[in-house]
Amino acid sequence: MSRPPLLVVVLAAGQGTRMKSALPKVLHKVGGRSMLGHVLALAQGIGANALSVVVGPGMEAVRAEALAQAPGAKIHLQEQQRGTADAVLAARDALKAHNGDVLVLYADTPLLTADALERLRARLDDGAGICVLGFEAGDPMGYGRLLTEGSGFLSAIREEKDASPAERAVRLCNSGVMAFRLPDLLGVLSRIGNANAKGEYYLTDVVEIARAGGTRAAVVTGAEEDVLGVNSRDQLAVAESIFQRRARLAVMREGTTLIAPETVWLSFDTKLGRDVVIEPNVFFGPGVTVEDGTEIKANCHFERARIGKNARVGPFARLRPGADLGANVHVGNFVEVKNSTLGVGAKANHLSYIGDGTVGAGANIGAGTIFCNYDGFLKHRTEIGDGAFVGSNTSLVAPVKIGEGAYIGSGSVITKNVAPGALALGRSAQEERPGWAAKFRTMMAKRKAKPG
Amino acid sequence: MSRPPLLVVVLAAGQGTRMKSALPKVLHKVGGRSMLGHVLALAQGIGANALSVVVGPGMEAVRAEALAQAPGAKIHLQEQQRGTADAVLAARDALKAHNGDVLVLYADTPLLTADALERLRARLDDGAGICVLGFEAGDPMGYGRLLTEGSGFLSAIREEKDASPAERAVRLCNSGVMAFRLPDLLGVLSRIGNANAKGEYYLTDVVEIARAGGTRAAVVTGAEEDVLGVNSRDQLAVAESIFQRRARLAVMREGTTLIAPETVWLSFDTKLGRDVVIEPNVFFGPGVTVEDGTEIKANCHFERARIGKNARVGPFARLRPGADLGANVHVGNFVEVKNSTLGVGAKANHLSYIGDGTVGAGANIGAGTIFCNYDGFLKHRTEIGDGAFVGSNTSLVAPVKIGEGAYIGSGSVITKNVAPGALALGRSAQEERPGWAAKFRTMMAKRKAKPG
Amino acid sequence: MSRPPLLVVVLAAGQGTRMKSALPKVLHKVGGRSMLGHVLALAQGIGANALSVVVGPGMEAVRAEALAQAPGAKIHLQEQQRGTADAVLAARDALKAHNGDVLVLYADTPLLTADALERLRARLDDGAGICVLGFEAGDPMGYGRLLTEGSGFLSAIREEKDASPAERAVRLCNSGVMAFRLPDLLGVLSRIGNANAKGEYYLTDVVEIARAGGTRAAVVTGAEEDVLGVNSRDQLAVAESIFQRRARLAVMREGTTLIAPETVWLSFDTKLGRDVVIEPNVFFGPGVTVEDGTEIKANCHFERARIGKNARVGPFARLRPGADLGANVHVGNFVEVKNSTLGVGAKANHLSYIGDGTVGAGANIGAGTIFCNYDGFLKHRTEIGDGAFVGSNTSLVAPVKIGEGAYIGSGSVITKNVAPGALALGRSAQEERPGWAAKFRTMMAKRKAKPG
Repeated sequence: MSRPPLLVVVLAAGQGTRMKSALPKVLHKVGGRSMLGHVLALAQGIGANALSVVVGPGMEAVRAEALAQAPGAKIHLQEQQRGTADAVLAARDALKAHNGDVLVLYADTPLLTADALERLRARLDDGAGICVLGFEAGDPMGYGRLLTEGSGFLSAIREEKDASPAERAVRLCNSGVMAFRLPDLLGVLSRIGNANAKGEYYLTDVVEIARAGGTRAAVVTGAEEDVLGVNSRDQLAVAESIFQRRARLAVMREGTTLIAPETVWLSFDTKLGRDVVIEPNVFFGPGVTVEDGTEIKANCHFERARIGKNARVGPFARLRPGADLGANVHVGNFVEVKNSTLGVGAKANHLSYIGDGTVGAGANIGAGTIFCNYDGFLKHRTEIGDGAFVGSNTSLVAPVKIGEGAYIGSGSVITKNVAPGALALGRSAQEERPGWAAKFRTMMAKRKAKPG
Repeated sequence: MSRPPLLVVVLAAGQGTRMKSALPKVLHKVGGRSMLGHVLALAQGIGANALSVVVGPGMEAVRAEALAQAPGAKIHLQEQQRGTADAVLAARDALKAHNGDVLVLYADTPLLTADALERLRARLDDGAGICVLGFEAGDPMGYGRLLTEGSGFLSAIREEKDASPAERAVRLCNSGVMAFRLPDLLGVLSRIGNANAKGEYYLTDVVEIARAGGTRAAVVTGAEEDVLGVNSRDQLAVAESIFQRRARLAVMREGTTLIAPETVWLSFDTKLGRDVVIEPNVFFGPGVTVEDGTEIKANCHFERARIGKNARVGPFARLRPGADLGANVHVGNFVEVKNSTLGVGAKANHLSYIGDGTVGAGANIGAGTIFCNYDGFLKHRTEIGDGAFVGSNTSLVAPVKIGEGAYIGSGSVITKNVAPGALALGRSAQEERPGWAAKFRTMMAKRKAKPG
Repeated sequence: MSRPPLLVVVLAAGQGTRMKSALPKVLHKVGGRSMLGHVLALAQGIGANALSVVVGPGMEAVRAEALAQAPGAKIHLQEQQRGTADAVLAARDALKAHNGDVLVLYADTPLLTADALERLRARLDDGAGICVLGFEAGDPMGYGRLLTEGSGFLSAIREEKDASPAERAVRLCNSGVMAFRLPDLLGVLSRIGNANAKGEYYLTDVVEIARAGGTRAAVVTGAEEDVLGVNSRDQLAVAESIFQRRARLAVMREGTTLIAPETVWLSFDTKLGRDVVIEPNVFFGPGVTVEDGTEIKANCHFERARIGKNARVGPFARLRPGADLGANVHVGNFVEVKNSTLGVGAKANHLSYIGDGTVGAGANIGAGTIFCNYDGFLKHRTEIGDGAFVGSNTSLVAPVKIGEGAYIGSGSVITKNVAPGALALGRSAQEERPGWAAKFRTMMAKRKAKPG
């Protein structure tokens, strides 16, 4: 079935004062991505042919995020907050240029699903001029009620304060999401007035105007959590928890074990392979891939990193952007890896910082090893050859290369390249002063005993 | 409206055998403060003019905690556990000396709110001689029922075992919390008998005695969770979870983002600024302040510390008592800060121990740096000037001063002061033995191959 | 009362395709032990005289786990998956050799309790020839219903698809667990046919056949969660959460404080003493014992370790197999201990790796100390005498012994034994180059300013 082209208008102008934030509301994140980003990804995912984002004055950061997430989007300015119809009309130019379906979404509903939108559009295909997304509210108080007649068509959208007792008992509520297949949508929108208590232009009025012109408005019902709108930090936390529940279930269904799913945080783009086993309390920032058969022990923190097959990571491991771990790599406790590649079977098990480096296949990085990558101005690289052995508590002062199979004595400071197969040492001879400790203890005990 | 002065009597003599603990029950903590401390803080918060704490024999630790939390409190000894009326009468001296309202609280109900108590006192203002705090029990089994007549006045408090089927169906239960405005409270209390199954003196009997004398007892209703009494470790955990839920919601409402509120633990005195963003699993011990705009990454542990504006802390950071981080400071993974001040914009991002030090503004502490502050007897200080650069894996042997803008080569052991702007190094020359590694490997392979 | 001997047949042949795993389903773990292991431990715990485990083709790992957990078990191969009766008949040899009660369990129900099984057997004692374990299902859809007549006897087990509307309303469902005291169990099992939709042999048919022969089948009811069968990773996570809830409650009841029980993960064999206090997010792998009065701060990870009385561990501590901490030991943040003994009162508070060592009583291990235990081939031991002081950032290159009361200067690399009471140092003299930093900064600033 061929459908008319689709324009999605995303309303993102709300200021979100209840967030008590310097950051515009729609830039707050859920699952590691801005709420606006979620809605734009959804719009792109359902095949929008054109995208319009309506922002408020001074929202440069919203504009930038919109273009970062959807480079082809048009950004429209709503000068004043005069209601949802006014907001949609801010995209007047886009509406004029568009000949097809129009879908209105909200940038503060990050949990909306493609399935719900597909069902909206199917009703347009079936002949409805308008389709509204409703939901069965657990507690309908405060929401507009969707009053229906037979066959899932709307008779009215009734605001709470105007509703009769019988109407208030209706639990089917208005999410605000609407789809249109109206030849004269712009004309209809322009006829919406603001003769109401707040003096605002409400998009919901479109239903009555269209009905007066003989257009029927359909309703489809989604889950209440799908249309959760975020207006405060506690609602943001609720949205996050729903996002996480869905994401965790999805990875478990695909063959990842989460011992305590409620303590594993996934990002929108986390990819976990089959037979990956994850202990409690692991945080996946954006951009992380874990391949099949890998074990992630508790208390890890990952961001923009790749972990190959059958690796063992953690507990207490941190992988920062650019960490790329090959198959069978072991990265253990209190180890940080940043912008570094570890070859197949390499090991760094304890208390190490691996920054801006390359670690060859099978190389062993001893406990307490530090890649000294920063000189106060520039970052420098450390390259460690295949099969090299770096003794514990070694400082590798970059730029430096350790040849294949080379061996670094524990406790060394390495400032110059080491040839393949060589032993390098950079540590002092040990001296001993017999009997010193007893004298020291006597002296210190006296000092501590002194008054004052 | 001027009210009579208020005496609060806190009953803290219960032994709490179900806790299975060497520690008296009321010293167990919720939100980083003893349950007794919560109740005393509440009493002080509502403006008590006098405070009496009733303890049992041998409870020196309870006495000490009471005086630490409320220095002006009087401590009374209840020699034997003979019921709640007996416990209140242990404070006989304080009751005699007091002319005004009396409020009886329990040191094992840490979740009680000022609001509930204000409503109790308002009923006294309205003429009630006694006011009892009731609650609607989810499961009333085992509680005394509050039987009421019109207008929120008590007709009786009926113990479960004495209740008729109709009375058992009542869900309004007795919390035990009572307020009195009775000229002869002491006299009334003295008339309570112990002719009951347990041979105990029950404070609840005061209602009947007072009614017989023409005094009406009012009831106000609080939430069940407000009056949760803690008798076992699992109830302690429930109290903690309610405390945390309240505290988390309060900080979110004020503009802090908690990505996973259920994994952030706050203390009774935690202060979080606006646009603070907190990743999962952060533990706030007592005495922590975080200023506006700061980001706390996952898995941190803080205690008696301050973090300035727009700082970045964690993941895996530990701030111990006396850690004072200025604005824009970065403290990263596997870094511990104790009794140290970090100036504006200072950075310590990896695997470092900063103890008993001062780090100047803009100074950089390289990965793996250790402040060697302890000589086995005394702690010594390390002072690092503004803009200094401490190379990675440096040992700073205190007492030592690094001048402004000085530069320490990576891997150095620094035992003497460094002049401003100087370079200091304390590391050995690197030696190399070509071909050594292959011989070593051959030798070791043979050794491993040997039987036994 | 003397009972007939008991044979337990554990069905473990299911492939568990919904797990999407290379690992057979029953080897997935709950509480640190395979599901099969839980069921075998239960069978042993109720005093089974003989144990039979039925596995599928190619399940060598299941066979091995069964023998590891129950060395005397007999392993039987079910060639094809032809239903539960066929599975039991795979143990035909064991059934033939056995004269007594038979209990059929499932290796994918790790939460079953001894109490439920005891109640099953008691019904056999009371004269039932068969006893079926039922449960009241929250949602009975899909389960076989247990239709009962008076006195807890079964009239039939009705499959969902064959049930009348009235029968579907029955919520008492079949768990599959059955106990038998039938002289001719093997004969009865052999008469089960496969004339059903799937062509499988169902163990449940035994009830009807036995009834026809005059044997009554009793029913006892267990909790739904006791008989939870695990078929997918999300069900595995549910089983884990139930296991954890039970285990946490049990340790709290015995006098351990869990500040946030929902974030402490216990293993099947975790032992926690009285007045142990555990902060959030602590993971107990198998084989851990913590003695009375010890405090475990947040974010720890333990496996096969012992912690003595009144110790302080964490936050961010990792104890690996063979860590043995004496009384009053302190192990602090970012410290890993493996295969090492710490004597009474020893301290290792910061950023250290203690591997393959012995630390004497009262010894102090400074921040950043590394036991350099591995030379690329072998692990070597470090021995530290009582009362020794190891300065911060020391590398101890094993094999090495530090004598009693010896003192190691901070930042040293120690490669040779140190005599008792001696001071040892292994670090370079400090050099200084005045004014160097300013020149370096000027040079670097120019370099950074260059294009390209």
